[in-house]
Amino acid sequence: MKRQSEHAISPTRSEDYPEWYQQVIRASDLAERSSVRGCMVIKPWGYALWENIVRKLDGMFKSTGVKNAYFPLFIPLSFLEKEAEHVEGFAKECAVVTHHRLEKSPEGGLVPKGELQEPLVVRPTSETIIGDSFSRWISSYRDLPMLINQWGNVVRWEMRTRIFLRTSEFLWQEGHTVHATKEEAVERTKMMLDIYAKLAEDYLAMPVVKGRKTPSERFPGAVDTLSIEAMMQDRKALQAGTSHFLGQNFAKASEIKFQSAKETEEYAWTTSWGASTRLIGGIIMTHGDDNGIILPPRIASSHVVLLPILRKGSDQTSVMSYTESLAKELQAVSYDDSKIHVEIDDRQIGGARGWEWIKKGIPLRVEIGPRDIAQDSVSVGRRDKDLRERVSMKRSQFVAEITRLLDDIQNNLYKRALEFKKTHTVEIVSKNQFYEFFTPINQNKHEIHGGFALSAWCGSDRCEEKIKEDLSVTIRCIPLDAQDEKGDCIACGKPNSQQVVYAKAY
Amino acid sequence: MKRQSEHAISPTRSEDYPEWYQQVIRASDLAERSSVRGCMVIKPWGYALWENIVRKLDGMFKSTGVKNAYFPLFIPLSFLEKEAEHVEGFAKECAVVTHHRLEKSPEGGLVPKGELQEPLVVRPTSETIIGDSFSRWISSYRDLPMLINQWGNVVRWEMRTRIFLRTSEFLWQEGHTVHATKEEAVERTKMMLDIYAKLAEDYLAMPVVKGRKTPSERFPGAVDTLSIEAMMQDRKALQAGTSHFLGQNFAKASEIKFQSAKETEEYAWTTSWGASTRLIGGIIMTHGDDNGIILPPRIASSHVVLLPILRKGSDQTSVMSYTESLAKELQAVSYDDSKIHVEIDDRQIGGARGWEWIKKGIPLRVEIGPRDIAQDSVSVGRRDKDLRERVSMKRSQFVAEITRLLDDIQNNLYKRALEFKKTHTVEIVSKNQFYEFFTPINQNKHEIHGGFALSAWCGSDRCEEKIKEDLSVTIRCIPLDAQDEKGDCIACGKPNSQQVVYAKAY
Repeated sequence: MKRQSEHAISPTRSEDYPEWYQQVIRASDLAERSSVRGCMVIKPWGYALWENIVRKLDGMFKSTGVKNAYFPLFIPLSFLEKEAEHVEGFAKECAVVTHHRLEKSPEGGLVPKGELQEPLVVRPTSETIIGDSFSRWISSYRDLPMLINQWGNVVRWEMRTRIFLRTSEFLWQEGHTVHATKEEAVERTKMMLDIYAKLAEDYLAMPVVKGRKTPSERFPGAVDTLSIEAMMQDRKALQAGTSHFLGQNFAKASEIKFQSAKETEEYAWTTSWGASTRLIGGIIMTHGDDNGIILPPRIASSHVVLLPILRKGSDQTSVMSYTESLAKELQAVSYDDSKIHVEIDDRQIGGARGWEWIKKGIPLRVEIGPRDIAQDSVSVGRRDKDLRERVSMKRSQFVAEITRLLDDIQNNLYKRALEFKKTHTVEIVSKNQFYEFFTPINQNKHEIHGGFALSAWCGSDRCEEKIKEDLSVTIRCIPLDAQDEKGDCIACGKPNSQQVVYAKAY
Repeated sequence: MKRQSEHAISPTRSEDYPEWYQQVIRASDLAERSSVRGCMVIKPWGYALWENIVRKLDGMFKSTGVKNAYFPLFIPLSFLEKEAEHVEGFAKECAVVTHHRLEKSPEGGLVPKGELQEPLVVRPTSETIIGDSFSRWISSYRDLPMLINQWGNVVRWEMRTRIFLRTSEFLWQEGHTVHATKEEAVERTKMMLDIYAKLAEDYLAMPVVKGRKTPSERFPGAVDTLSIEAMMQDRKALQAGTSHFLGQNFAKASEIKFQSAKETEEYAWTTSWGASTRLIGGIIMTHGDDNGIILPPRIASSHVVLLPILRKGSDQTSVMSYTESLAKELQAVSYDDSKIHVEIDDRQIGGARGWEWIKKGIPLRVEIGPRDIAQDSVSVGRRDKDLRERVSMKRSQFVAEITRLLDDIQNNLYKRALEFKKTHTVEIVSKNQFYEFFTPINQNKHEIHGGFALSAWCGSDRCEEKIKEDLSVTIRCIPLDAQDEKGDCIACGKPNSQQVVYAKAY
């Protein structure tokens, strides 16, 4: 195995963070760019992460009474136009279907034919098409609350794309709920944000700040947008889930009305909330190191790889049967809501084999050779530790302790990420210090800056815009748990301003 | 409760089968037409069925080594053109994306802008876009077999649509595998067909015929198409899953090559296989009766509904707490790969409540009133039996026996469907009899005919076409388990012809 000073990923994070990110995705076999502009292919190792995220979120949604349903991929233009801010927000990046068949042209190529009377947009989000159903489904307060979620794909025609973080097509879930009262809708908005925070912290081991967006950063058409914001290792913020209180805006646009208990007709109150394959980008950038990705065990595509050492001349059959019986034993161990997932890699390709699994970020690597078998023990490496560190354990002890080991890795990753976030989150009251904080402190392609600044904001669009223009720094959120901290606006100096989180963002 | 002679669904099956189908979907709250031409909305009760189908199939796929991945929604025209038969088969029904943004026109409406250099097709199936990835992923025989599945949505712009059976957008899975040898690919094609048959028979309680398609009914570009065919209650066939041996056609189109163990470069052998939300249409038409859908327990959206009887003046609190404690007890019971799913419906809306659940096809209905509680018993109705038949059982006995009851319903539904299929599958050797068999035998809107005819076919396209023209009857498949039955071709009389299944089809 290579010495650790020779990193498996080049460039390293400190050399060129954006390029490191691309190289980690390639080396870990998570995904790749496709031949279709801006669209990604999610490979099995990456898709397994998504399947786990789906299972966890889906369970949490259902435990609050949400049910899944499915609505059309296509949205008529007339629907999109119903909410003015909404269409404004999405019109610039819509894939538009205009024809419904292909014909051979005289030159031999295919050309679109059968023009549609009304073009259709591939959904960038589904408020308007789901609202159309809700307007039919809801007539009385007895039909409320209506709590619906959809798992699916959406398309936003992004000009600059980056795998998982910003792609033209991505996978996500979008929840849509309808309530009889404002209070209940506001409460639901917060409840779903808490579920995203729980997923991020308890499963992805990714600490987050829960907060409220400023008006300029709200979802188009929303009254209030809440988000979770995580700090990546380049100290930039990643918005990792959003939950919107839509007031009566979309109810009015889609005519979602109900008869109240008092027999009056009223517009309903709606919410929507979403999280996407972007979360995988968050896992990579929260935990990855210069040897690849590190997967938090509770969400990992797989937990442990067994690496039998099959030297020529040694008893290969007994090594393989030992390996297979250990795999069976491990697969029977319960972990979280499922069982331990085990890989066996019996390829004899030298040190490259171990490195592949390191790059793929599997939590535990176990080598099994004739000497280990003679002692009924295994040699265990943890992905969160120094790669040279390996512990020899009795087989039975390893089986008995594997869930404890995984929990330990999970906790370790979370603590490390939390420590990082704390270290690079600084309360700043001086404007000079603020500008310095966000000035790159190294000369590499990747500009490392300070991180999250907790500073005051007077509430004006102008001050927000000024900071954005000067530094490419935005207000990520007004933290929900803010203890009413006040100070002088970092831009204009206005006293008694609200403390917010300023950061550069993905 | 209405007397059974007054059916909940109007028209009944024998009055107008196609309209009965639409009315059952409406009454059971499974799905609805959307405002987008040809696209459906799958409502929570229908989507839960799909979630169960997904879970069962996904588990069976994975047990054979298949892994999930995700590929782009969009396919460049140039990809589609790579396989001549393939593009021929799908060009007539493609949704084509030609623009990537919208702008307000001077008249105020939105118009498509940003024309794409190369139009994109919304995937009708993904052989070509997945083949593009496979050509990069595979270089050596060591990379094979590659076993990939994708869950997603596809679009085929159908002119005449019917919910679940034929919609412009539908949900499905498509498996794509790559092999080093023809034999292995042929074996995989059969293996996946067997999984579809197992899903249909063991879970959907829907007996099927496994068979091979004639050349005219093959998937465009396939060498061989296998399918499962089920008989609906109007005696028509429903193709419920297909598995294709693609030979080297798509490998050549997409340049999927590998270096063999002998170090020669060879084209790979591929397969693809799919099943879709159409299966839900199959459940409806296999088991539904004139009171609605009947859900087979092993795939049901939910297993049992508890209906507390809360009369004014009676002790409503104790009825509700009895109901809730029974629900908890039932939810702890293991059933199949999960737990019993329980609904509580405490609305006081008279007999309409029970009828709603009958129409929704839930396997068990349990009424709980003060008198039942006094005797610590419950009144149980089975959806597969006469609706007036209710059995009073001790509560503890019901809890102990619920899985046996569900198994009994499952078996009963399967037996009934198998009996029906056997009764209406007839070996026919005379041409006159064959033409009579497929002539409608009633004068209602819905034309009931004979069913499946086992008759001989000489193998010529002409004879197949003649029968189709005369009777709208097609060869559904050449059964895989055919015992080499031979006879005179039903169309031309040529002796020593192969026995096949003729039927009208969805």
